[in-house]
Amino acid sequence: MNRLNHRDENGLVPLKVEDIKIMETDKHIGLVETQYFTFAHPPGVFVLESGEGIGPVTIAYETYGALDEGRSNAILILHALTGDAHAAGCHESEKDPGWWDDMIGPGKAFDTDRYFVVCSNVLGGCKGSTGPSSASPGTGGPYGLEFPLITIKDMVNAQKLLLDHLGVETLLAVVGGSMGGMQALQWVVSYPDQVGSAILIATTSEHTPQQIAFNEVGRQAIMADPNWNNGDYYGGALPDKGLSVARMIGHITYMSDESMNEKFGRRMKDKKQPFKFSPEFEVAGYLHYRGYNFINRFDPNSYLYITKAIDCFSLANGKPLHKLLQGIRTKLLIVAFSSDWLYPPYQSQQIVRACKMAGSDATYCELRSNYGHDAFLVEFDEQTYLYKHFLKKVHDERRGG
Amino acid sequence: MNRLNHRDENGLVPLKVEDIKIMETDKHIGLVETQYFTFAHPPGVFVLESGEGIGPVTIAYETYGALDEGRSNAILILHALTGDAHAAGCHESEKDPGWWDDMIGPGKAFDTDRYFVVCSNVLGGCKGSTGPSSASPGTGGPYGLEFPLITIKDMVNAQKLLLDHLGVETLLAVVGGSMGGMQALQWVVSYPDQVGSAILIATTSEHTPQQIAFNEVGRQAIMADPNWNNGDYYGGALPDKGLSVARMIGHITYMSDESMNEKFGRRMKDKKQPFKFSPEFEVAGYLHYRGYNFINRFDPNSYLYITKAIDCFSLANGKPLHKLLQGIRTKLLIVAFSSDWLYPPYQSQQIVRACKMAGSDATYCELRSNYGHDAFLVEFDEQTYLYKHFLKKVHDERRGG
Repeated sequence: MNRLNHRDENGLVPLKVEDIKIMETDKHIGLVETQYFTFAHPPGVFVLESGEGIGPVTIAYETYGALDEGRSNAILILHALTGDAHAAGCHESEKDPGWWDDMIGPGKAFDTDRYFVVCSNVLGGCKGSTGPSSASPGTGGPYGLEFPLITIKDMVNAQKLLLDHLGVETLLAVVGGSMGGMQALQWVVSYPDQVGSAILIATTSEHTPQQIAFNEVGRQAIMADPNWNNGDYYGGALPDKGLSVARMIGHITYMSDESMNEKFGRRMKDKKQPFKFSPEFEVAGYLHYRGYNFINRFDPNSYLYITKAIDCFSLANGKPLHKLLQGIRTKLLIVAFSSDWLYPPYQSQQIVRACKMAGSDATYCELRSNYGHDAFLVEFDEQTYLYKHFLKKVHDERRGG
Repeated sequence: MNRLNHRDENGLVPLKVEDIKIMETDKHIGLVETQYFTFAHPPGVFVLESGEGIGPVTIAYETYGALDEGRSNAILILHALTGDAHAAGCHESEKDPGWWDDMIGPGKAFDTDRYFVVCSNVLGGCKGSTGPSSASPGTGGPYGLEFPLITIKDMVNAQKLLLDHLGVETLLAVVGGSMGGMQALQWVVSYPDQVGSAILIATTSEHTPQQIAFNEVGRQAIMADPNWNNGDYYGGALPDKGLSVARMIGHITYMSDESMNEKFGRRMKDKKQPFKFSPEFEVAGYLHYRGYNFINRFDPNSYLYITKAIDCFSLANGKPLHKLLQGIRTKLLIVAFSSDWLYPPYQSQQIVRACKMAGSDATYCELRSNYGHDAFLVEFDEQTYLYKHFLKKVHDERRGG
């Protein structure tokens, strides 16, 4: 149970002395727990963009801070490809905090003293939300490839039902980086009157062929592993080598030429390698480590489904993007990082240009960073400054209006 | 037998009427054959940079045009990762000409009416030169992983023996793109007095961690395929899926974001896909096609050995590059392509800067192209203009001096 969800009469968290100490010294939310919301959209199934139905659907989520009386302070945080609902605070049994803990908490960018922050694991995922590794109501066993193809829009529609369940009618902001940014953009277009503002970080309005190509090769690596067994590997040997190769490709695209140079250079690992083609360069050892650990925390079929959803994402689907954005009053903050070559700044600029043509309120900021696409997960100071001020402004306007 | 190797009394090719017709209309060399030179360096083995010995060694090569009487017109062309000795002209049984046929031939950039052009398959390769798929003298069967690790320097030392065999004491030019450029650079440093000029195209003086990372993932994809069987797959099932994934990764890095956009966009293939994760985007279909065809023309173990040689390439090995180039009188033309993100222009500029610091004669040219790294294999007009004039100048100076 998230103790910060207990609200006082003002809808705010009743602070205890030890909480204040934690917050002021560690600026940390403290212990949190993932919660689950299960629904079956009428008539008994959740209808996907493809027309296929699925149900029941469970969405894993966490909340931090408290919803105020006016229900005006809710922020939805949307995660990237391999993220989960655990964005901040600590789970009782785990040492590491959530994936964006530096950004979410008391006094942080997404200030839990001010805002009610929600983060949910996407539909199709493997961290508590319904996905290919979940039990199929038909067989009782895991769906595997019987799971229907899902889209970014399906993820967003499931999140909308979660927010309805939480009593959040309108969002102060939707916020996401990478695939999270695609969801945020889809929120703005699907539910324009429910979204006061959006922070779109290191993202795009549609996947380019190069971006599709990287995902495609990752999927091929998984499916080339005989243990993948047409998606039916649950309870048996896992396609760990295939998933590992897919993850290594991903990691190359998340970093930049510069950040790899700084982090690894051409340094060799100390130990004499036992084998001719052992990863003797540090950079290779790092990729191995990240690749082979990934199997412990991610379902290979979820990787296939989610990357496919990303590849199919094209917000305007061939039509002019600005026409889709016309009449939208959501305030947008669009952020790109200078060394991000996976979602390069020009893709953010395309969104900004479309917003300007549509007469929308959009601000663009390109942050200088050497960290490539990973920058949104590691560059906290400038992001904090930027998001804090943006949110304060939209929050003040909302309360004033 | 390459009929253009028959020389007249001036050391030039005796043209027949049909040859002239072919050359003037098709600008084509005509039929050529790959030749083979086998040697065992004293004392019976070819000694590698690692100290290990190997022998006998066969190098596959082709020649076009004729060596003049002064032996002053020889140009060595060096191929990239998956290239071969067949750079120009046609083989009797094949429809497609050599891989740089647009650049090599009568009147072309490497004008076979003027120059004697040699191209050899690298040591470690699988197109006629000794490599891991060759018969090991010990067992009679293929070397497999018993083949020793080789380096770019080893490739160059083998080429030197081939040129000695062909009676070429000095080269008018060494020329190569990508890995070919690394060999050309190594030639300049290893045999400075034998190399009059060098054209280094889309290359680097050392592999960066990002470049190593891409190769590492390709190797891991091959080795993850159970058919790879620790390199012992000859005569059995081939690791085609693993090699295919490696090749797909390669192709993404050879193209650019722009060229993929132009060539594929987000177009889907016409046919309804039979399977959820079929490559439905055109870009994915293209990568599949290139990936799965690769097994018909390349040995997976050669892919491991050659990429490893590339990754280990660091000309100055941590020392200042300009110190290595001091006193070298080879004239250098260094060419990069604007959209090449695998070997970005800054890496060519590093070589130029070192040349300038060393007082070497170096000219740099960055050609505008959307084709990414592939540009050196497809952008012929500007390259032809540039190389033709550069070679004429160094050839004139050589004959004059």
